[in-house]
Amino acid sequence: MEVKRPPGGRRTIRTVRFGHEILRQADELACFTEDAPRLTRRYLTPQHRQAGNHLLGLMREAGMDAGFDALGNVVGRYRAAAPDAPVVMSGSHMDSVRNAGRYDGLFGVLSAVACVRDLSSRGRRLPFTFEVVAFGDEEGVRFGVTLIGSRAMAGTFDPAWLEVKDADGISLREALAAFGGDPEGWRTLDRRGSGVVAYVESHIEQGPVLLNAGLPVGVVTAIAGGSRIRVTVGGLAGHAGTVPMGARRDALAAAAEMTLAVERIASAPGRDGAALVGTVGVIEARPGAINVIPQDVVFTVDLRSSSDDARRAAVTELREAVAAIARRRRVEAGFDEFYRFAAAPCDAGLQDALAAAITRQRVPVRRLASGAGHDAMVFPPLCPTAMLFVRCGANGISHHPDETMTADDAEIATAVLLDFLEHHDPRGSK
Amino acid sequence: MEVKRPPGGRRTIRTVRFGHEILRQADELACFTEDAPRLTRRYLTPQHRQAGNHLLGLMREAGMDAGFDALGNVVGRYRAAAPDAPVVMSGSHMDSVRNAGRYDGLFGVLSAVACVRDLSSRGRRLPFTFEVVAFGDEEGVRFGVTLIGSRAMAGTFDPAWLEVKDADGISLREALAAFGGDPEGWRTLDRRGSGVVAYVESHIEQGPVLLNAGLPVGVVTAIAGGSRIRVTVGGLAGHAGTVPMGARRDALAAAAEMTLAVERIASAPGRDGAALVGTVGVIEARPGAINVIPQDVVFTVDLRSSSDDARRAAVTELREAVAAIARRRRVEAGFDEFYRFAAAPCDAGLQDALAAAITRQRVPVRRLASGAGHDAMVFPPLCPTAMLFVRCGANGISHHPDETMTADDAEIATAVLLDFLEHHDPRGSK
Repeated sequence: MEVKRPPGGRRTIRTVRFGHEILRQADELACFTEDAPRLTRRYLTPQHRQAGNHLLGLMREAGMDAGFDALGNVVGRYRAAAPDAPVVMSGSHMDSVRNAGRYDGLFGVLSAVACVRDLSSRGRRLPFTFEVVAFGDEEGVRFGVTLIGSRAMAGTFDPAWLEVKDADGISLREALAAFGGDPEGWRTLDRRGSGVVAYVESHIEQGPVLLNAGLPVGVVTAIAGGSRIRVTVGGLAGHAGTVPMGARRDALAAAAEMTLAVERIASAPGRDGAALVGTVGVIEARPGAINVIPQDVVFTVDLRSSSDDARRAAVTELREAVAAIARRRRVEAGFDEFYRFAAAPCDAGLQDALAAAITRQRVPVRRLASGAGHDAMVFPPLCPTAMLFVRCGANGISHHPDETMTADDAEIATAVLLDFLEHHDPRGSK
Repeated sequence: MEVKRPPGGRRTIRTVRFGHEILRQADELACFTEDAPRLTRRYLTPQHRQAGNHLLGLMREAGMDAGFDALGNVVGRYRAAAPDAPVVMSGSHMDSVRNAGRYDGLFGVLSAVACVRDLSSRGRRLPFTFEVVAFGDEEGVRFGVTLIGSRAMAGTFDPAWLEVKDADGISLREALAAFGGDPEGWRTLDRRGSGVVAYVESHIEQGPVLLNAGLPVGVVTAIAGGSRIRVTVGGLAGHAGTVPMGARRDALAAAAEMTLAVERIASAPGRDGAALVGTVGVIEARPGAINVIPQDVVFTVDLRSSSDDARRAAVTELREAVAAIARRRRVEAGFDEFYRFAAAPCDAGLQDALAAAITRQRVPVRRLASGAGHDAMVFPPLCPTAMLFVRCGANGISHHPDETMTADDAEIATAVLLDFLEHHDPRGSK
């Protein structure tokens, strides 16, 4: 491809090897959706199965051994020449949010598979087995628990999750069995002690930092930690025409005030000055009739920060604000921080190795934190971990059909990953 | 029954004729529900059909001619001796809100039928045909349009409603046809010019006024008018972890602020000092994922007042508040007052006649306004209209399974209606 020449900059010619093909593959995979023309692909749905089969084909064509594992992850292996070689893992997730973009997750899988196809076509073996995983669940849309696939590999799968139910009352255990997986097979996925020496994930940034900086890729320094909270508000239903305003115990009015408290708390700097973000993404009011005062409201809160201290303080402040609003309005309030994850720092050595690969592509190196969670965040206890971010177009929008990435950026990101792999020495010297 | 003697009060003995039987019938009818053990009976559902058939049986046993009409109303007639006698109508609705109480609506039907059964058993004919109607739709839960049955009879049915669709995309026209009704038959229901001289409806109060006053029944002076508004908020979705708080256009945070504006505006006295009530009963946020900033929110507003001026001013104030919040938060906002009804005064002569009947039952007369809408509100253009309210237990709760009424109060209310009917002279002198 011809890289667009910045005004006054030098002309650079590259060969297009990956970019267009990866975007075409992402288009194809977007067809495996529960609600076309929107893209929604939840864990253990028929669309998960279809997309997985499609990925298996791409992996095998690229020269990998590939199959579904017990939890529905798609795992491909490009074997080292030596049978006892260490393992470098890459990949990302193949599930999506509702009405998603097409690059979130799958780009990291397709980019890694493209690297293997290139190596394989040149007959180039690496001094490590390169394993590419398309994790079945990262977003947590279906069961409310995120990172199920990657946690199993990192050895932090919680078997209590098998009993968690989706909105239709189907447990993870039942869904795995219906999918053809093995609910008890999570034990076999644990990679601790099996020679994994690095996990390196490519991912679209899902924010505007690289876009505003005019850079195609960046090196992630750390992934923000998060808390997920379910707030339940119990008021008293009543006829919308007959209960005077002062006598009401309106669960939805209380929830509205609590929603604004989330916004206020997340908009202030954290106690240690770190940035926070807070989102109420789901709200349900019952009985849900135009002329009935809402009795029961449930809403979710997603709070994140690269500072665990700032996040914990914000959770405490929110818990107190919810309780105070409930007291004043004479409603009941439940506050359940049902899921949390610590901020995950990326490995300094792998960051430097990715930076060197970026430099070899004649791209300036930018380091940035990730506000979003990623599969990579669960791997630091298992092995050194790093992430490469790829520029996200359209003002950094993601989790939305407008999410976009250019073929040029897909090309550069894949070239960086391939360069990194070809320079990586699993014995530790670079 | 033996009326409980108030401390120091005189002992009064009444014969139980109606109370227990009416409550038992209401229990039976509560079994015709879409979501047992809850009570939900929407217009033109199989449960509407079943409950209607049950009512037809009760009406015929009581000595009435009875049948479904073209819009699914159940109509029973207790004929006067003279073929050209005028008509007095009574009744109420047989549909319900979601998770409803069992007396809202049906009590008025059962009480009127009990009067006929008593008259019929004594061979007593009235100088007017007494028509009892169980209206198929008053609440408007299914199609968002209320009072469909009573409006047809009052001559104010809007044929555009036939194309309104329910949540499943089924139009009123289609639902009527599937029910076995006649979508074009609304024309034949118009009672204008057909000799209807009065409409008198009994209804549970659905509020705490009579309960707090210690009275079993009361005479309604007027029914509050109302506005129903649909507010749509269009923001921008984004990843809950990556979009800084200051860069968000969060549709749900905006809707939360608007919900509190509804509460604030309705809590202030109206411009002419009249009381208002305002309720956000339905809210939906899309895409509805825990880690995605909401892009689209729809919520409903129900605003009521016995003063039409106060209500209109509140709608204007809310429209301006919604627009201001939307501007400040850089979201789009749509404001659709899709339905409104004027306050309906009750006829002074009929009020006095009901008061006289109450006095003859040795009960003090209390007059009160109705905050809730009722079928009666559409009849003043057709004929003089009145309502009898019956005490609502459990702190006046209604539109809720805790809604309750005592057999004693059902007895007294039915005795009042029967007394009223036996004293009513349709030629105008009382």
